[in-house]
Amino acid sequence: MAKHFDRELEKLKKKILSLGAMVEERVYLAIKAIESRDPDLAQKIIRLDHEIDETEVEVEEECLKILALYQPVAIDLRFIVAVIKINNDLERIADEAVNIARGVSYLSRKKKIFYFDFDFSQMVEKTQSMLKGSLDALVNLDTDLAFKVCILDDEVDKINGEVHRLVKDAIRDNPEQGEHLVNLLLISRHLERIADHATNIAEEVIYLIEGEIVRHGDLNS
Amino acid sequence: MAKHFDRELEKLKKKILSLGAMVEERVYLAIKAIESRDPDLAQKIIRLDHEIDETEVEVEEECLKILALYQPVAIDLRFIVAVIKINNDLERIADEAVNIARGVSYLSRKKKIFYFDFDFSQMVEKTQSMLKGSLDALVNLDTDLAFKVCILDDEVDKINGEVHRLVKDAIRDNPEQGEHLVNLLLISRHLERIADHATNIAEEVIYLIEGEIVRHGDLNS
Repeated sequence: MAKHFDRELEKLKKKILSLGAMVEERVYLAIKAIESRDPDLAQKIIRLDHEIDETEVEVEEECLKILALYQPVAIDLRFIVAVIKINNDLERIADEAVNIARGVSYLSRKKKIFYFDFDFSQMVEKTQSMLKGSLDALVNLDTDLAFKVCILDDEVDKINGEVHRLVKDAIRDNPEQGEHLVNLLLISRHLERIADHATNIAEEVIYLIEGEIVRHGDLNS
Repeated sequence: MAKHFDRELEKLKKKILSLGAMVEERVYLAIKAIESRDPDLAQKIIRLDHEIDETEVEVEEECLKILALYQPVAIDLRFIVAVIKINNDLERIADEAVNIARGVSYLSRKKKIFYFDFDFSQMVEKTQSMLKGSLDALVNLDTDLAFKVCILDDEVDKINGEVHRLVKDAIRDNPEQGEHLVNLLLISRHLERIADHATNIAEEVIYLIEGEIVRHGDLNS
């Protein structure tokens, strides 16, 4: 029984990590689509989202099966519950990648020359490293890394705030670019949401290891 | 043991419904704050958010305790897992109420006269009825009501799309109102997110009753 359980747990771990890798790739593609304004790439992200949805459902069914069959306790139970929640966050990160792709799809249809273009590279870099960090923290049960992810979230929030201010000023100066500018603002918000979900994953990992709920707390205090 | 379990389950049901009622009230207050542009009300919503956070943590701990102590199976197991996920959605709905409050807080500091003001009443009404419906569906295990919530989501999405278009046009015509207009757009998106979370709750309820995963599916087909 214990051997079966370990095997199931191993299988579940692999499955959630493979979902994590899929989601990481979608975010990577969405970011490439922002940079290249490539409508085909954007369409591909939208078209393939069902793969993520299907894997999410499989992971949850796997979790329910393990809970019912093996009735795990202590750290194993906490792990399964963490996977149920992380699974949810991963699927929503992929949804944000789709939202970004939709924004890019719109931008690529416009042939205007823009007076304002925000350089998302820093925000993109931090968000990607948060997502990667949260998944690595899960694989290696690494609390330090998970804490680093949570702290990076403040920086992404700050950049998002900056984009807001810049966009609002740019709208005042170049009103005819309003639609384009609002799209940039929304891309920034989608990135910020991805960072939020990565933080949720990192907080789950910390809870899993330390048994302590850090969400809603101020990590900088 | 069975008697204890039933008592614990009853307690959990009460707790998640009481969280639901708290969150419903926060959304109601956020909506009142939009209508009245009342900065004190907005501040109250922001200040009291920790109550929601604390209750969310308590509900999750309760779920883990029940899973570990009673190792429920079948419908009872599904119920606990549904509560874990619904708990998460409720907390995020409250976060959106806080986001709305922040937007209102900003709007109330501005003394300008606005050329454009969107009437959110229809969107607000639908969103509130979705949240209420999803919680009633959970209490009464009412699939029909849960399906109705899922269908209403399309209408809220449509209004959100309309707000986008109106705001973009208004920015072009009244660029000096850009900041104000972007804030209206964001309020619309927060309402739309609340509707999304209510849909997640309704889908969980359907899954709980029918054992069938309806999320990611097209309910209208």
